[in-house]
Amino acid sequence: MNIEVEQKHCVDNPAALQVRLAVRGVTLGLAIVQADTYFAHPCRNFAETDEALRIRVEGADCFVTYKGPKLDATTKSRRELELPLAASHAEFTELLAALGFESVMTVRKSRRPFELQHGGQSVHGAWDEIDGLGTFVELELSADDASLAAAQQVISSLAAELQLGPSERRSYLELLLGQSS
Amino acid sequence: MNIEVEQKHCVDNPAALQVRLAVRGVTLGLAIVQADTYFAHPCRNFAETDEALRIRVEGADCFVTYKGPKLDATTKSRRELELPLAASHAEFTELLAALGFESVMTVRKSRRPFELQHGGQSVHGAWDEIDGLGTFVELELSADDASLAAAQQVISSLAAELQLGPSERRSYLELLLGQSS
Repeated sequence: MNIEVEQKHCVDNPAALQVRLAVRGVTLGLAIVQADTYFAHPCRNFAETDEALRIRVEGADCFVTYKGPKLDATTKSRRELELPLAASHAEFTELLAALGFESVMTVRKSRRPFELQHGGQSVHGAWDEIDGLGTFVELELSADDASLAAAQQVISSLAAELQLGPSERRSYLELLLGQSS
Repeated sequence: MNIEVEQKHCVDNPAALQVRLAVRGVTLGLAIVQADTYFAHPCRNFAETDEALRIRVEGADCFVTYKGPKLDATTKSRRELELPLAASHAEFTELLAALGFESVMTVRKSRRPFELQHGGQSVHGAWDEIDGLGTFVELELSADDASLAAAQQVISSLAAELQLGPSERRSYLELLLGQSS
């Protein structure tokens, strides 16, 4: 089982953080525009079970993603299943609707990926501009059960070095809906 | 909305029916082996709502199919959504399991397709050998709301000409589970 160890931070001063990243030799990649539509389960309250089901449209590509409950209190580590879709976004949404899954909201963002070496690992980063929310940075490592604790330590230590402040555990969807975690 | 107008018949005497088909110039196509895994909905009883969700594996291809309730008493006309899957059968089953859909049973069949001209239309037929059930013939036309009644008439009249006997409204899954329609 792949586990996504992920930590997200609201960026109050984007210019200052870009300087700190530049000092470390980090270059932000080209912006990718993503539209993520989230769905409500027909008989589970995903806000209570801390799960999510979404369809992501990214250019001509389309994916369905299930995220399980977060596994600990600081990072956003959780089970994640992401499958490419051969059908269109509209066709898969029609299938989900027939099964009782209703679309809740679409989160639109511009994401600029970057890579950062830290603790002997290559940490994947994302510089996110979220429609209606502002700028966020995400740091991510893939882990399995055996490497989970070490990966969480690498991410926390890197966030501290970058002076990222407290982590934001709420999803962009929750922040847009004004929910508390 | 595409509607599948479909009528199915148990074949008591396959040899006699093959002669009647041959007289009409019908040749059975090559056998396709299909394994259909059906899923239970987490909070709907599909046996009561007359719906179905299945994953079909056919050679290297994989599809997810939703079937809505039957629309009338004789044919098996119903709403059908079938989408190709880019992910494997196992990956999509894992996604469905995470969402609370449990696999109920896998129906395995060898299907030989054929075409038959009747009532000015090309009717799609299938000669099915179902593991554990025996031989069945299905007759099918695609229709929309406007052409539904005419398509049902063509299928019924062809079934009578082929001396197919009463139609079987229960699915192969229901027959294997011993359910009544």
